[in-house]
Amino acid sequence: MLPFNKPTLLLNKAKCLANIQFMVEKAQKLGLVLRPHFKTHQSLEVGGWFRALGVTRIAVSSVPMAQYFASDGWKDILLAIPPSPSQFEHINLLSNEVKLTLITSTVKGAMQLAQHVTGKVNVMVEIDTGQERSGFKPLDHKQIADAIDYVNSRNSLSFSGFLTHAGHSYKVMPLEIEILNGQAIGVLEELKRRWATHYPNLMVSYGDTPTSTLASAFRGVDELRPGNFVLFDMQQASHGVCDVESIAVALACQVIAVYPNENRAIIWGGAVHLSKDTYIQQSGEVSFGAVCRLNNDNTWTNPIENVFLQSVSQEHGVIKGSNSAFFQCLQEGEWLAILPAHSCLAVSCMGEIYCADDKKVFKCHS
Amino acid sequence: MLPFNKPTLLLNKAKCLANIQFMVEKAQKLGLVLRPHFKTHQSLEVGGWFRALGVTRIAVSSVPMAQYFASDGWKDILLAIPPSPSQFEHINLLSNEVKLTLITSTVKGAMQLAQHVTGKVNVMVEIDTGQERSGFKPLDHKQIADAIDYVNSRNSLSFSGFLTHAGHSYKVMPLEIEILNGQAIGVLEELKRRWATHYPNLMVSYGDTPTSTLASAFRGVDELRPGNFVLFDMQQASHGVCDVESIAVALACQVIAVYPNENRAIIWGGAVHLSKDTYIQQSGEVSFGAVCRLNNDNTWTNPIENVFLQSVSQEHGVIKGSNSAFFQCLQEGEWLAILPAHSCLAVSCMGEIYCADDKKVFKCHS
Repeated sequence: MLPFNKPTLLLNKAKCLANIQFMVEKAQKLGLVLRPHFKTHQSLEVGGWFRALGVTRIAVSSVPMAQYFASDGWKDILLAIPPSPSQFEHINLLSNEVKLTLITSTVKGAMQLAQHVTGKVNVMVEIDTGQERSGFKPLDHKQIADAIDYVNSRNSLSFSGFLTHAGHSYKVMPLEIEILNGQAIGVLEELKRRWATHYPNLMVSYGDTPTSTLASAFRGVDELRPGNFVLFDMQQASHGVCDVESIAVALACQVIAVYPNENRAIIWGGAVHLSKDTYIQQSGEVSFGAVCRLNNDNTWTNPIENVFLQSVSQEHGVIKGSNSAFFQCLQEGEWLAILPAHSCLAVSCMGEIYCADDKKVFKCHS
Repeated sequence: MLPFNKPTLLLNKAKCLANIQFMVEKAQKLGLVLRPHFKTHQSLEVGGWFRALGVTRIAVSSVPMAQYFASDGWKDILLAIPPSPSQFEHINLLSNEVKLTLITSTVKGAMQLAQHVTGKVNVMVEIDTGQERSGFKPLDHKQIADAIDYVNSRNSLSFSGFLTHAGHSYKVMPLEIEILNGQAIGVLEELKRRWATHYPNLMVSYGDTPTSTLASAFRGVDELRPGNFVLFDMQQASHGVCDVESIAVALACQVIAVYPNENRAIIWGGAVHLSKDTYIQQSGEVSFGAVCRLNNDNTWTNPIENVFLQSVSQEHGVIKGSNSAFFQCLQEGEWLAILPAHSCLAVSCMGEIYCADDKKVFKCHS
């Protein structure tokens, strides 16, 4: 299938399907709704692979992204970011087409929703279970009650439950995940219990990729909302959330300069393709991506040992490492496959994915 | 001009024009050709502002970017990255339209150029003056001679001089710039002298934004090739290369959640808008952007003291700081202006710039 004529983000369909299958089955076994976050792949085609396995509810991270998937027939969409008031008009329009769920994360935010959102939408109260990004603190009972009151002040809005993004799970190792998971769902369970008298049907929406993948118990949780797992990446692999074999995307890059005596090579592939996100290798060194050989069928090998993407500038990537044999043999013009530090941002940078199995470019929303 | 309906990269035309004017005049005074690197703005309109001041030569960081500017009538283009063999066909076509200059950075790269580049192009030999990215070491006389021999082996190729990107200048403070500058141009001067007997017309192409802006002497240099200065950013400001007042772009973002008791606020504006690049504040803390107030005419204030963009996730930005008064007064729905850590990547992420003065969206190549 080679050659390409520019850095190309390759999608391995088999790996991606296996990742989807795993999460669909895990949710089924646990009796949980799976509401995958589509911000990772941003692709209608990949969305279709979820749909084929029975998924009907999704999460997105912007109103334009909600519109994009709504246009492809998705009818149950959660906007998993406090809505920007600049988007209320679009939200009202979208609420006519789909079952839309918003989140509210401050009392004033709830007040603004009640003032400006005239369409029929569900509203979940976002709880900060430790990430310290957005959401009410679990013990802010007065503020949570005020927010729910504002939601109830507008007939078209329905308070439908509690949601959290336990994003601090991205920073811990597998052994700590169960503890973090227990704390986060404990908080949500307590809130659910507290409000169940008035709202017997309220839901708890939970689950980033590390907890959804690794944790085993989700008491009180109704739906899981992971995103990254569909592609995985080196951040997840370096935290023990996935094997490198499960990473379903790699950036095909051509080698443009080799310095064998300095154990260094340059690829056309930089920050505009991969983003500037990083992960920490076992050696303790920061890396922008793992370096694999690209096979002729556009699959890739496991990462080459003692070689890594040491830095990126706008279009250049610098590959370094102690593997002298690799650099001695490497040639200008060879293609390598870089496993990204963060697949969501690589997709966003590239704006399209090449699915070698289907011989098709998937355009992404970004 | 407000409101926008999404995060919007604003361009302040007056600041941008002043930045361009400064560099055009500096090059004129020094008797140097200015060949601005257009990877920063990637905009035909901003390119036109350079043209209006007499600039006719440009640098770009990819062949597609060269094609983009060639389509707008630019006739003298330097591709400032070792060319990817996948692009040789496009290079040959482009060489029919424009005076194209390539660089070669390894002996094998030069050999491949000689084998595959059939169009009439100039070739400069890239020298690594300390960045340790691409280029020959200054004392690799044998390899440099071999590369020049390969260039000469193909009639259509002309060896035209030496080029460096002293990218290590991005990491030092102003007092060290003159030293670094002296070292880098000393290396190039020596090479020029060595090869001048055979190539009396050879050129030296030099100059990133820190050296071009701050250094005063460029002995032996023929052209300056800075890019970032056209917009500047917080990386440059934090290194003392520019004042914050000279930064010509800011991301307009709406506040979507405020936590006054935690000195924290959330904006819709994250890694997909600004990239994940950072700078170090005077306090020593890492920041993803400086936070300014956005005026009604889409200009912005100087950065608000003791407030900064502490982290970004895909679409969220987290603003933190010790300025309690700021957080006490901030409201959901307000717009702020974020000065990016790295303007080149913010432009690449956004793909367009809104020029408030012209009330016009400038589409970018990226």
